[in-house]
Amino acid sequence: MSGITPFKLLMSREKALEIIMEHVKPVEAAELVPIERSANRVLAKDLVAGMDIPPFDRAAMDGYAVRAEDTYGTSEFNPKTLRLVGVLRAGESTSREIRNGECIRIATGCPIPPSADAVVMAEYTEEKGDNVLIYRAVHPLENISPRGEDVKRGEAIIREGEVLTPAKIGVFAALGLRKALVYRKPRVAVIPTGVEVQDLGLELKEGQVYDVNSYTLASLLLENGASVTRAPIIPDSYEALRSALYRYIDHDLIVFSGGSSVGERDMLSGIIEEDGKLLFHGVQIKPGKPTLFGVVREKPVLGMPGYPASCLSNAYVFLIPVIRKMARLPPKKPTTVKARMAKRIVSASGREQFFTVKIVDGKAYPAFKKSGDITSLSNADGYVILPVNLDVIDEGEEVTVTLFE
Amino acid sequence: MSGITPFKLLMSREKALEIIMEHVKPVEAAELVPIERSANRVLAKDLVAGMDIPPFDRAAMDGYAVRAEDTYGTSEFNPKTLRLVGVLRAGESTSREIRNGECIRIATGCPIPPSADAVVMAEYTEEKGDNVLIYRAVHPLENISPRGEDVKRGEAIIREGEVLTPAKIGVFAALGLRKALVYRKPRVAVIPTGVEVQDLGLELKEGQVYDVNSYTLASLLLENGASVTRAPIIPDSYEALRSALYRYIDHDLIVFSGGSSVGERDMLSGIIEEDGKLLFHGVQIKPGKPTLFGVVREKPVLGMPGYPASCLSNAYVFLIPVIRKMARLPPKKPTTVKARMAKRIVSASGREQFFTVKIVDGKAYPAFKKSGDITSLSNADGYVILPVNLDVIDEGEEVTVTLFE
Repeated sequence: MSGITPFKLLMSREKALEIIMEHVKPVEAAELVPIERSANRVLAKDLVAGMDIPPFDRAAMDGYAVRAEDTYGTSEFNPKTLRLVGVLRAGESTSREIRNGECIRIATGCPIPPSADAVVMAEYTEEKGDNVLIYRAVHPLENISPRGEDVKRGEAIIREGEVLTPAKIGVFAALGLRKALVYRKPRVAVIPTGVEVQDLGLELKEGQVYDVNSYTLASLLLENGASVTRAPIIPDSYEALRSALYRYIDHDLIVFSGGSSVGERDMLSGIIEEDGKLLFHGVQIKPGKPTLFGVVREKPVLGMPGYPASCLSNAYVFLIPVIRKMARLPPKKPTTVKARMAKRIVSASGREQFFTVKIVDGKAYPAFKKSGDITSLSNADGYVILPVNLDVIDEGEEVTVTLFE
Repeated sequence: MSGITPFKLLMSREKALEIIMEHVKPVEAAELVPIERSANRVLAKDLVAGMDIPPFDRAAMDGYAVRAEDTYGTSEFNPKTLRLVGVLRAGESTSREIRNGECIRIATGCPIPPSADAVVMAEYTEEKGDNVLIYRAVHPLENISPRGEDVKRGEAIIREGEVLTPAKIGVFAALGLRKALVYRKPRVAVIPTGVEVQDLGLELKEGQVYDVNSYTLASLLLENGASVTRAPIIPDSYEALRSALYRYIDHDLIVFSGGSSVGERDMLSGIIEEDGKLLFHGVQIKPGKPTLFGVVREKPVLGMPGYPASCLSNAYVFLIPVIRKMARLPPKKPTTVKARMAKRIVSASGREQFFTVKIVDGKAYPAFKKSGDITSLSNADGYVILPVNLDVIDEGEEVTVTLFE
């Protein structure tokens, strides 16, 4: 009897991602959030304008409200004089009608007085006591923003599914709305496993290492629109894994880190199969082979490798697309740059291989050390992929580097 | 006497930005934040490793700890038998020495037993009762991650000024650190002004509009690394402006929205000059002309246009670079795409002009309406710049669109 069992057939990265994506659903629930905190959230319901914006015909310029016909024929050399019958400072309005031959000084944004139909810009006027010289003709509606010009009452001005931006937040504000109805963030439970794993701030005992994965995963998830529960570290025993799975089953996604390696304590896949469906266990990428995915009580369960660099590198590959789909955010467009390999890299893994690299002066230097090494990623600017069917990239060859962002 | 004074000489956008950037300083103060919340924050002090990672020589693979010399000459067809003298499951360690002819089953991550110097991967072994058949030779140190291989004690592993990422957060975790010392976020006071401006949730009176700018600016600032105080709306009177300026002078940057137009109530530039220095008032861009900047008691003061689209468009031009410098974040690299103008656009402003556009099927449709119109921005994907010396872009001409992000 061997104490260690190998992986079954490995699945390609593309197929694994496709399976995960098929089995996760965008969040349906919605919540109200203060608009100034709603950037990058996804609108859950069409925003229908409850009022016109602007709410009244208003002056688009500082100047003089007039009857346009009074200005016809005027020019720089042939000004016309109108009688100043009032002044509207910002925030003021008047019900006084303007008759022919009259004008009212008006500040940008003020309601246009009744029967005025245009504004002459201050630059083309000269105020002299009770009179104003007009040096330029205006046509009706000139320098007026009519009521509803920006937004019409009843108009669906932002659509369900749109990602809110500062400008869209401005539309909520212009309508007087303090809160926006957005989709709730997907709730993710991150469960670190391993008897050898110690929580931060506590002393390491012989053979222990600190929990890295729940922190790297949490920060990556938070950046991509999730809310995160970091569970306490559990030993990777059958009882502990099973009880943690059901304790966090109310979450939208449950992520175990560790507990999915080929080690003899690997029980997670069995636990998933008891009451759910295991969809794959083992992916044809390096690092990141010991990744598993299943569904239990309609909740997606992802088992990530225990080694920090493998776990985080896999999170870029699988977790970001998944969480963004759940959060209804658009897929992240990876930024890529071209560089020349500063050193030859060789893969004999028979798997698609990710090599982290650091870019210096347009050259890509290998940054990858071992799957356990967090500095493989923390010192890297991005990664190069060596496909399954390619074993070597020579020094000086051009490669496409996908940047970590 | 005219009630309305024109702008003095307008400043170019480049020069205006240069002046602002010269007069703002990166924040010096630092604070401790929980590492899982520290993504995109800037490290305030070199992180020097207080321990080796891994903290001990450990197994890099599941397999059998051996003396390498015992495996020399073995092969698939010529296996060698070693005696199994122990088992190390995850989290376990042993002080038992391995003698020649012996091995210990070991899980990935366990400390290497004394006098073992290599691990044979499980795939190349067969366990039979107390014996293990070894099918492949290993050299000394094979499949061992030596103590300090990832990080060496005393090494400066992340440098002051680096922006924290999930991978760098992982380094903190690996060292057992719960918190990171990062630069404090720049504190920005956003002060909306105007007697005609009403706060959200309250009823509009005749001639009033809702406060848009403090919300759009707050969300843009929050996204770019600032912490924001949204001040109550103040009337743009001398007393109110002056008292608000000094009430928020303990902030790192004070932004007024409105209060910098040519309207007769424009007093902000005068207030700045009383006890500080006005550096410009009026920029040669459209929209966004009525922008001013000064320094009072060493604090930068920015006056933004009151019109929502002008204010936000100017925030993209001036406020983002400034706040990112103060927050010590790298400049935002604008994403640009090429598109063909779907319609002719004309500028006769004599100023550099920003046209917002919506991109549909590779064509850029003008989205800009008026400076007052928030939908000029909320319906747009990005903007096209028409330089001062260019008046027209024809339909079908290729343009570079800078995307809002």
